[in-house]
Amino acid sequence: MQQDLRAPQQAHPEGLFAVGNPVSHWSVFSIKPVQYEVRISEDLLAVDNTAILEDVAATGRPRRFVVVDSVVHDLYGERIRTYLDHHGVDYRILTLRAGEGHKDLEGVQQVAAGLDEFGIDRRREPVIGIGGGVLLDIVGMACSLYRRGTPHIRIPTTLIGLVDAGVGAKTGVNAGGHKNRMGTYFPASRTLLDRTFLTTLDDRHISNGLAEILKIGLIKDARLFELLERHGSELLRTKLQRPSGTEADHLVQAPAGQRLTLQEHVLDPATEVIQRAVQGMLEELQPNLWEQVLERVVDYGHSFSPTVEMHALPELLHGEAVTVDMALSTVLAERRGLVDASQRARVLRVMDELGLPTWHPSCTPEVLVPALRDTVRHRDGAQRLPLPLGIGGAVFVNDVSEEELVAAVDDLAGLQPGAAR
Amino acid sequence: MQQDLRAPQQAHPEGLFAVGNPVSHWSVFSIKPVQYEVRISEDLLAVDNTAILEDVAATGRPRRFVVVDSVVHDLYGERIRTYLDHHGVDYRILTLRAGEGHKDLEGVQQVAAGLDEFGIDRRREPVIGIGGGVLLDIVGMACSLYRRGTPHIRIPTTLIGLVDAGVGAKTGVNAGGHKNRMGTYFPASRTLLDRTFLTTLDDRHISNGLAEILKIGLIKDARLFELLERHGSELLRTKLQRPSGTEADHLVQAPAGQRLTLQEHVLDPATEVIQRAVQGMLEELQPNLWEQVLERVVDYGHSFSPTVEMHALPELLHGEAVTVDMALSTVLAERRGLVDASQRARVLRVMDELGLPTWHPSCTPEVLVPALRDTVRHRDGAQRLPLPLGIGGAVFVNDVSEEELVAAVDDLAGLQPGAAR
Repeated sequence: MQQDLRAPQQAHPEGLFAVGNPVSHWSVFSIKPVQYEVRISEDLLAVDNTAILEDVAATGRPRRFVVVDSVVHDLYGERIRTYLDHHGVDYRILTLRAGEGHKDLEGVQQVAAGLDEFGIDRRREPVIGIGGGVLLDIVGMACSLYRRGTPHIRIPTTLIGLVDAGVGAKTGVNAGGHKNRMGTYFPASRTLLDRTFLTTLDDRHISNGLAEILKIGLIKDARLFELLERHGSELLRTKLQRPSGTEADHLVQAPAGQRLTLQEHVLDPATEVIQRAVQGMLEELQPNLWEQVLERVVDYGHSFSPTVEMHALPELLHGEAVTVDMALSTVLAERRGLVDASQRARVLRVMDELGLPTWHPSCTPEVLVPALRDTVRHRDGAQRLPLPLGIGGAVFVNDVSEEELVAAVDDLAGLQPGAAR
Repeated sequence: MQQDLRAPQQAHPEGLFAVGNPVSHWSVFSIKPVQYEVRISEDLLAVDNTAILEDVAATGRPRRFVVVDSVVHDLYGERIRTYLDHHGVDYRILTLRAGEGHKDLEGVQQVAAGLDEFGIDRRREPVIGIGGGVLLDIVGMACSLYRRGTPHIRIPTTLIGLVDAGVGAKTGVNAGGHKNRMGTYFPASRTLLDRTFLTTLDDRHISNGLAEILKIGLIKDARLFELLERHGSELLRTKLQRPSGTEADHLVQAPAGQRLTLQEHVLDPATEVIQRAVQGMLEELQPNLWEQVLERVVDYGHSFSPTVEMHALPELLHGEAVTVDMALSTVLAERRGLVDASQRARVLRVMDELGLPTWHPSCTPEVLVPALRDTVRHRDGAQRLPLPLGIGGAVFVNDVSEEELVAAVDDLAGLQPGAAR
């Protein structure tokens, strides 16, 4: 029963180490391997597209519990049923009310109660969530808790779901008036990205998703920013759909007998924007899936916005609150000489082009100072505030003072169209 | 942006793999390393014992949020405050109502609300839970959800907490009338085992903990079973306290100039029983911390009991329901020739000796058949039922029929004292 605790040599040791004689101390080391898939598959609800059901067992009638947000259900409920009926699935559809205001534990409990009633095998009958970021976060949280882990598949139907909520590992709900105060890290076994859902989205929700895409451009991908700068209003107007005539040949054709290198491929802007946004997001998430490192460039736009968004609820969408935060952070960065006036002007212009606000009346010291204080708690005692460095880069600072924040707010207010100066 | 998906060679690959040109598929591989400590430290609330606060930072006033169950607070509240005051801690104590009936999401929300109000830094101010298994499960779940992960320290005050709930990774609450239907895997950074808390526990709760100890003996440690068989009633009477006069010298002294080998150490029965129970539990948990393997010998006694316990609530304590299940499983095993009649008799005799029930009126087909059905769902479509193999061993079966179950119930009823046959 005795064993010495040898300082384990491996980077990630596994084992049980017992120390003392008699034993008075046990150390448990274990690792949890995680894998998940993010796949582009258009027209998911076409009956000949089997992406949703590709994990169905060879024998037995498949059973699936499907959670759909109420707005999506109104638009796609019939097609979802037709699809599942066509494939002989024994299913139950639960609809949840859409919107940030319903992102709470009650939604999680509704999913759990539905699962109790329908009954699924714990590991091989994944729950299917179809909806926007809020729906996917609720369903993901319910699945992570139900029997301490039930697999799920995410099908985002909004742009923000497609490039942000859908591709990461986080789940969560609001609690106590705080944004995403309770949640887990529990990636979907796979996320299926189908931009044809965006055709039924209104412009404001397209803009909402463009905000998170813009974030990736600003902190790490200048090319992505430039695509938004050049094609922003067209992307908004076409809802990022594939241009007609490019279904199979949206790549530049290679000269006969030659293969194109990556750099020679020219995608249409919408396709390239989605691809770069997802790739950039995953590059940041993969090495830090459980946020063991709290300096996260993807937190850009997420330092003040959680409080601003909850304060302004239901007035601001998530991406809108994020944009206001990014605008403020850009001005903070300009005051520190990290971006110059022309870069700042380009950034604010693109935000405007994408239909996103750069200001909200709740940008007051009374809201922003406590917002930063809560973020410091969230980041374990330090600001770890990502600020843009030029366009496509970021740095972290820990010393933004209240005075500096107030001055930046004042600057940003002065930059608004019609500002009295 | 393109990269081939090479089937990763490592056992646990890490990285982001993007497939297709243009990319249409990303695979995310990551591993989460986990470490936690279980330590024996008696008299934790003595002011010169720093085990509870050993992670306090060198500078700044320590802040701690402490959750205590109401019964423990009545008994130890003053000592807890004295301890924290002595060490200059800025603390807040939240009391939760004790007992299985209060093991729900509301308790989790109370902890979260308390954390919001007190405010702690996300990673370096661990929440301290002091109480029985129910309290520790609620606090663990709240901490796993709060900001998607806040560290916690577990201080079990009951025997079942000491050898079971306290040393594993699971957290959870009951939901929809189902035992632990929602929860997470989120071990405490450390668990401190102090058996002096048991002195204020009534006999029934000592028995309750002995049930989980007996389980470890039955499935994997014949020596532990024999210790319970030989010293059961004494352990119950002395509440597993260290025999007087053995504080420092409870080991057989080695002859001068010699060291004892492990086998030569003779611990007092209470110390050895606790040590073997914790060791046995951790040996089973460590390689399977997230229950990726669903054949778990520690599920012995936990196949029918979740439903029986909830059905009989508040009549049966957890360990009592587990014992009824173990008795039933022993009889099932006897019918299959896995244990013989004399072994079965010894097992039931020890249960009785430990003050544990081997029968409950809810042992009817109407309760047990659906109980097994739910367990099959929980174990992903197969019974995976651990049955004892002699004493100290276990096998898994998947083919227990309803008839067999009913016959075993009948057998078990007939074995009860005063049964009419």
